[in-house]
Amino acid sequence: MNIDRLEASMREINEFGGTPEGGITRLAYTAEHWAATRYFMKQCEEQGMSVRIDACGNVIARRPGLVSNLPAVACGSHLDTVQQGGRFDGTLGVMAGLELVRGLNERGIATRHPIEVISFACEESARFGVSTVGSKAMAGKLNRASLERLHDKEGISFEEALSAVGLDVNRIESSRRSGKELKAFFELHIEQGPVLEESGIDVGIVAGIAAPARLEITIQGRASHSGTTPMTMRKDALIGAAEIILELERAALAESSSGTVATAGVCDVRPGAMNVVPDQVMLQVDVRGTKKSSRQAVIERIYGVMSRLELERGLRSEVRVLSDEEPVLLDNRTADLLAEQCERLGVSHVRMMSGAGHDAMNMAALCPTGMIFVPSKGGLSHHKDEYSATSQIARGAFLLEAAVLKCAEAVSDESKDAIITLNRGHQHESGKAKGIV
Amino acid sequence: MNIDRLEASMREINEFGGTPEGGITRLAYTAEHWAATRYFMKQCEEQGMSVRIDACGNVIARRPGLVSNLPAVACGSHLDTVQQGGRFDGTLGVMAGLELVRGLNERGIATRHPIEVISFACEESARFGVSTVGSKAMAGKLNRASLERLHDKEGISFEEALSAVGLDVNRIESSRRSGKELKAFFELHIEQGPVLEESGIDVGIVAGIAAPARLEITIQGRASHSGTTPMTMRKDALIGAAEIILELERAALAESSSGTVATAGVCDVRPGAMNVVPDQVMLQVDVRGTKKSSRQAVIERIYGVMSRLELERGLRSEVRVLSDEEPVLLDNRTADLLAEQCERLGVSHVRMMSGAGHDAMNMAALCPTGMIFVPSKGGLSHHKDEYSATSQIARGAFLLEAAVLKCAEAVSDESKDAIITLNRGHQHESGKAKGIV
Repeated sequence: MNIDRLEASMREINEFGGTPEGGITRLAYTAEHWAATRYFMKQCEEQGMSVRIDACGNVIARRPGLVSNLPAVACGSHLDTVQQGGRFDGTLGVMAGLELVRGLNERGIATRHPIEVISFACEESARFGVSTVGSKAMAGKLNRASLERLHDKEGISFEEALSAVGLDVNRIESSRRSGKELKAFFELHIEQGPVLEESGIDVGIVAGIAAPARLEITIQGRASHSGTTPMTMRKDALIGAAEIILELERAALAESSSGTVATAGVCDVRPGAMNVVPDQVMLQVDVRGTKKSSRQAVIERIYGVMSRLELERGLRSEVRVLSDEEPVLLDNRTADLLAEQCERLGVSHVRMMSGAGHDAMNMAALCPTGMIFVPSKGGLSHHKDEYSATSQIARGAFLLEAAVLKCAEAVSDESKDAIITLNRGHQHESGKAKGIV
Repeated sequence: MNIDRLEASMREINEFGGTPEGGITRLAYTAEHWAATRYFMKQCEEQGMSVRIDACGNVIARRPGLVSNLPAVACGSHLDTVQQGGRFDGTLGVMAGLELVRGLNERGIATRHPIEVISFACEESARFGVSTVGSKAMAGKLNRASLERLHDKEGISFEEALSAVGLDVNRIESSRRSGKELKAFFELHIEQGPVLEESGIDVGIVAGIAAPARLEITIQGRASHSGTTPMTMRKDALIGAAEIILELERAALAESSSGTVATAGVCDVRPGAMNVVPDQVMLQVDVRGTKKSSRQAVIERIYGVMSRLELERGLRSEVRVLSDEEPVLLDNRTADLLAEQCERLGVSHVRMMSGAGHDAMNMAALCPTGMIFVPSKGGLSHHKDEYSATSQIARGAFLLEAAVLKCAEAVSDESKDAIITLNRGHQHESGKAKGIV
């Protein structure tokens, strides 16, 4: 692997959707996302890989293995971004996979198992409000009917968006793959959080991916004049909301040994005038954890405050569950393999939970899945200033390479004869292995 | 006084600006407000009053007194409303003044002092963001320069709005009157709060008018991913805001013996997304009291929390003072006079503070001023469902009449001779006393 070349090709692909403000805007299935996707496909073809695109828009670029019919070892991530997103989220994992293959070709390293580099479509919820669509489709977790009501902000339906890039929503279920096709999946990604940077550890080995329970809490009080209503005669919905917000923090802190976190990110106050006691507040709350029981413990405490608000303040509140996803635990043995490779490479590492969702959580339903985090500066992501240093990227990318090679059973590059044999094998298998030395 | 007739003429004047939604919209100086103003002027002229309109749009309708050169006893309120306002706020005080004169004319009661009924212009801040403009102008408290930057939501300047109803902003300072012209001013108004209704007391005698101190507090945190940022690594601006909101309530409760109240009515969260820890919250806070020291005690406690948020949570916050008005205490002897009349009439009463601002607070700078509150159903005001029952209105209106007659030194209607004399006196003084029997 050549880290300079990896960074150069990340700069190149980030020309697509680059904005004057400095962020990258490649919303799923837009012209920008698709231009980046085509660029990636072309690069893979130049490396002699067989490249196909499925009905959901996932790109699967395959480097053949020595032994026919063995399941592939896959790696990858996504090329779509949020509005004004960063240069690393998703892109790093896809381009590192490409660079991994370039490096193998350059050094003439063959593997017994095929290697796949996958660019998943529509990982970000930024356009249609649903995330990891491509990997859900691949893992057979996509509810076809749920796609029908999806529209972006401009009113374009999911079906129309697919159609605009030549895909057919009616064939989307054909994206589903069998677990038998894959031996393992690895995703290299930036952490998007502050833990690695603050602890000074090189990489995170993801043990599980937290899933959010999302609640919308509506607190109903009574509007009254801010000047004429004595404090004891008020039903102030914003005071109720403040109690919930603080209890949410206390509850999550009590569960912090499980890594559960809770956030009130939306707080809409009605009528929202300085001279009126608020009569209604809508809070949107996100509770995440890899332990469902811990997440539930936080939610129970919210219900507890709600009862208290009704008794003590006459504030009624209602909860609407917006989502309640299952946390995903990643494969232990795959994590052990990553840890062993860290030891071998001298890369410091820590097992950690991912608070954000990733394609890896869907791939885990198909095959043993491992996920590698590299530090994010300031924990920042979905932002133009998203940044991971070259040395940090390098450690993650080398770890990815080591894990993929171990898992795909690389044939040592020490043996010239073997390489020749391999190359023949490749040419035989794919008929396109021109890039392999 | 004829309460049925008072209610009938309130219904009539509320045709101006009545909306299909049921609220009344007579924003200051609009066609609707002006139509109501002209209706009121016409009614006053029909009662033989001399009617003039000053440069600010205040209508002063005068019923002459028996003795020349005595200062007038005035009463009144305002005819402008908020958007979708109620049928009583302001309108009651103006129309009760008109009905008072009608009743005196009908019964042939004369007074030694002239009686004025005043309709103040632009009492509500709903159109230009400043309240009690007319009474400020009359009391010489209007800052002419401050009017220059005022615009309504449609971009119409204060000057243009005045001009549209034939008034000249350059003459606005001529609205100022001397205290020598007035013996007293009385304002009958709905409470706009729940105190009278909940206590079952007939009327409130206003002892003082609280003034708001208004603060805009901006709390600066750090945006981060709601899933990937451990609870202990957050700088959540909304949690800071919640602490301020709850402390505000505790502080106001601690000052409740002084009648001080505090409200956070606006809470704007940025970026306001479920998956992002809020980085900035803007709170707008209204603290009111008739004791400045008590109001200040509440504000000091807010500053206390702000310091604690910086120390304990790394949240910086800033305060911008939006307004800091002086509370007004009304004249004690005038309140005593109202209380005496209550006793005489068998009307239960309580001295209370007004949390809302009123024209009376400006008139208090000109002459001894009294204010009468009648109960508001549910404390509701600035709302289409604003309501006070006929019997409640009647008690307030009779009290107003009794106080005005006492103060204006009515000559008993028992004496026919006196009445004839009075009528002659009126005709002599005004030349228009055709309405007086």
